Amino acid sequence: MDPNASGLAMRLAEAGQSHLLQFWKKLGPKEQADLNHDLQGMDFKEINGFFQKAMEMSSSSKQEKMDTRMEPVPREVLGSVTRDRESLKDWELTGLHCISQSKVAVLLLAGGQGTRLGVSYPKGMYDVRLPSHKTLFQIQAERILKLQQLAEQKHKIKCCIPWYIMTSGRTMESTKEYFSKNNYFGLEKNNIIFFQQGMLPAMDYSGKIILENTGKLSMAPDGNGGLYRALGNQSIMDDMERRGVGFVHVYCVDNILVKVADPSFIGFCVKKGADCGAKVVEKNNPTEAVGVVCKVDGRYQVVEYSEITLATAEKRSADGRLMFNAGNVANHFFSFSFLKDVVQKYEPQLQHHVAQKKIPYVNGEGQLIKPDKPNGIKMEKFVFDIFQFAKTFVVYEVLREDEFSPLKNADSQDAKDTPTTARHALMSLHHRWVLNAGGHFIDENGRHVPAIPSLKDGTDLPIKCEISPLVSYGGEGLEDLVKGREFHPNVMIDEKGVHELVKNGV
Amino acid sequence: MDPNASGLAMRLAEAGQSHLLQFWKKLGPKEQADLNHDLQGMDFKEINGFFQKAMEMSSSSKQEKMDTRMEPVPREVLGSVTRDRESLKDWELTGLHCISQSKVAVLLLAGGQGTRLGVSYPKGMYDVRLPSHKTLFQIQAERILKLQQLAEQKHKIKCCIPWYIMTSGRTMESTKEYFSKNNYFGLEKNNIIFFQQGMLPAMDYSGKIILENTGKLSMAPDGNGGLYRALGNQSIMDDMERRGVGFVHVYCVDNILVKVADPSFIGFCVKKGADCGAKVVEKNNPTEAVGVVCKVDGRYQVVEYSEITLATAEKRSADGRLMFNAGNVANHFFSFSFLKDVVQKYEPQLQHHVAQKKIPYVNGEGQLIKPDKPNGIKMEKFVFDIFQFAKTFVVYEVLREDEFSPLKNADSQDAKDTPTTARHALMSLHHRWVLNAGGHFIDENGRHVPAIPSLKDGTDLPIKCEISPLVSYGGEGLEDLVKGREFHPNVMIDEKGVHELVKNGV
Repeated sequence: MDPNASGLAMRLAEAGQSHLLQFWKKLGPKEQADLNHDLQGMDFKEINGFFQKAMEMSSSSKQEKMDTRMEPVPREVLGSVTRDRESLKDWELTGLHCISQSKVAVLLLAGGQGTRLGVSYPKGMYDVRLPSHKTLFQIQAERILKLQQLAEQKHKIKCCIPWYIMTSGRTMESTKEYFSKNNYFGLEKNNIIFFQQGMLPAMDYSGKIILENTGKLSMAPDGNGGLYRALGNQSIMDDMERRGVGFVHVYCVDNILVKVADPSFIGFCVKKGADCGAKVVEKNNPTEAVGVVCKVDGRYQVVEYSEITLATAEKRSADGRLMFNAGNVANHFFSFSFLKDVVQKYEPQLQHHVAQKKIPYVNGEGQLIKPDKPNGIKMEKFVFDIFQFAKTFVVYEVLREDEFSPLKNADSQDAKDTPTTARHALMSLHHRWVLNAGGHFIDENGRHVPAIPSLKDGTDLPIKCEISPLVSYGGEGLEDLVKGREFHPNVMIDEKGVHELVKNGV
Repeated sequence: MDPNASGLAMRLAEAGQSHLLQFWKKLGPKEQADLNHDLQGMDFKEINGFFQKAMEMSSSSKQEKMDTRMEPVPREVLGSVTRDRESLKDWELTGLHCISQSKVAVLLLAGGQGTRLGVSYPKGMYDVRLPSHKTLFQIQAERILKLQQLAEQKHKIKCCIPWYIMTSGRTMESTKEYFSKNNYFGLEKNNIIFFQQGMLPAMDYSGKIILENTGKLSMAPDGNGGLYRALGNQSIMDDMERRGVGFVHVYCVDNILVKVADPSFIGFCVKKGADCGAKVVEKNNPTEAVGVVCKVDGRYQVVEYSEITLATAEKRSADGRLMFNAGNVANHFFSFSFLKDVVQKYEPQLQHHVAQKKIPYVNGEGQLIKPDKPNGIKMEKFVFDIFQFAKTFVVYEVLREDEFSPLKNADSQDAKDTPTTARHALMSLHHRWVLNAGGHFIDENGRHVPAIPSLKDGTDLPIKCEISPLVSYGGEGLEDLVKGREFHPNVMIDEKGVHELVKNGV
């Protein structure tokens, strides 16, 4: 295990990373073994190459040029739940048929940790304090289960939606344990496939890998675009092929409203013969911090909000809408063959993006320093970096209030996308489902509560209404339970029926 | 002062309000005098009539019928800053010309108290903690001053925009004192005209006036639609006529972004020959709690969000937009002659709306009770109730992020429309003005800050940038100050130039 004898010291010297061993002699045997193990598994030449390319791409002043190169999504590749309502049913039926044939898989990007959320466990295990206290993982699992049932009922055939869950090294064990302890929320254990995205070291601006303590490198997941490398090196594509998967819905764990394997979206993409599709919501405010799907030099990509000048963000079409209004919500469709091409052919062409960060590090004296401004970078690929390789790319526009409410930050006064906003978004959607199915809510005096609740002073909170995904996937099938009935909020609807909950109770 | 001798007791008995004297004998002389004074000034028959009509209107289940009666605003009466950009300059010039002729007045609705905001002084005196610490009143005053200057410079003629400020009995003295102490913020004292809206008693559901203590009635302002009665009984129309006012811009005090006497809006309305116009912002989310301007039975009105069923709120046009999307922002245009007709002819036809409230009251034993559910009503008229009388009604659609950010609630996690959201909205607008005038912001490393700031974790707050209205009314005239220059936030631009402020400093 002597780094000189093993050739490790030489490899590090060749890569300009010898400083990683500077504290070697002060380490105990266990620490030496761990560090040796970590370093032996790394390809420093490759990492240095990533660094160089990423820094080059980052420093070429993209923003200036971007404005003239951007084109909006043309109407003919766009499907919209508000503008193409006559086609929605047809798309949904097509999608449901694909599901019934077991051709549709879902792929969950769950490698991130809840750092901004302030928790040390995987985000999918977060409880946003719904009446049921279901976690994001449970909600998604139950939506998959319900969708299988809907497809089976419709087509009288047993089917399965395999669920591929990408974790990171840090979240793999706790994620697997959580699913196992909860009996996979009613899904078949064999149809949930966990795999792990790669990690990369954080580096300072000169390309030196950062030590987070004297015997340990500062490592971070390689971005959700690490997906494609992981799909290849963990034989996930083989698993999909064996199962006969034809279409894959990829999404992020943090969106409480996500329509997992959304049949309308799948059906739209399939009908259009697309190999790649992106679900978007309309961006209404020019300075909203969301990436937009557009064409750049004739190829589709997501342009991040930080790359856009105000003049471009404010551009409008003749109808008054923002020209670049296809807000990315990290909900993508890939055909299996496209995904396979990406994994086998295109992945090496993807470049890492640079994220400047404040990275704690040990100085020459072995002291831990927490910098107060960015001192280095993390390298990440993005899941949407592969749009450029699509031959037939489509965009599917949905309503934000129905489908997108991500959980990013802890509750605090200034923060957006918090447990509170996620909980309210889900309950507001379910409230609307009840109204649209013909139910009513009444207040303590027996009067109908207006459909649009006021949010006057933080006490008039939205009506608490939660509907189990096992009862309804997307608002369907509620008439028998609620039509013509009046409910006192709070209401919970699950497999056992409709329950009116005592106020302030669980 | 004996109520029997004065005939007061008889009048009360006839009106069914004798209970107001039930504690008379227990009151001291001063309390008796005050109560007598309050009661002598009231027309109980009229008040009882208001109550009956308001309750009738409220109980006729309007909501059910409303859906079938509502029609959206037709395109031909709509002017839009995003869809009619080729006309904007023309409208602005027309409006500026009217202003230069001293034909434009502004009328501020400032009768409300900052109850929800948690302060006991008039809302206009609120400081949302801008770098300058200017209050809403000061910001509006300076916009008026600047607009006068712009019109004078353009047309080489001295002009004036008279400012009519409606307060309530409770806020009149403190408002006047505040303006006086601040030298009317540079405006001519004679061109600021204060007047007072009426008050009405709160009543229980059986029509009895509520006592808030043994010797005092529970009184509240009669709603912002009390404007029209007040304009008449305080000779404000005469004052306008004397000054030659032709057009009036009416707005509420709480909107920090309000474009007072907005020349584009005025010019649009004038060009269209409108007697009445409403400024609106596009409603994007069906359940947003905002009233919508629409036609009902062929006449224009604002339908409040509480009156709309979800099915109607969710209706969409072929272009995918909400059908009822003209969100009322309490910014109206009236021609003088229309306003005069309203005050002289139509006002008595206006009916009070019922607002159910939790109203503290004294019980038969003289004890103060604070109810925990609504126990009575306040009666209010709304400023937009007169749209129905317009002969040529127009709607002017503006961008929310440029023109509408009301201050309603105190800062708290769940609240909308708080001092924080108002402050951020103003600074975001001024940040965009600087960018559009060719300025840049740079970070501590000298790099350009992206135009769209991220709001990640409550620490990445918007760039602090405040521009005095005395420098720019609507973003104009900033090139000389900022073009090609780079600024470290925070930036304040006032009559003395551009100041970079020390972080966390004032």
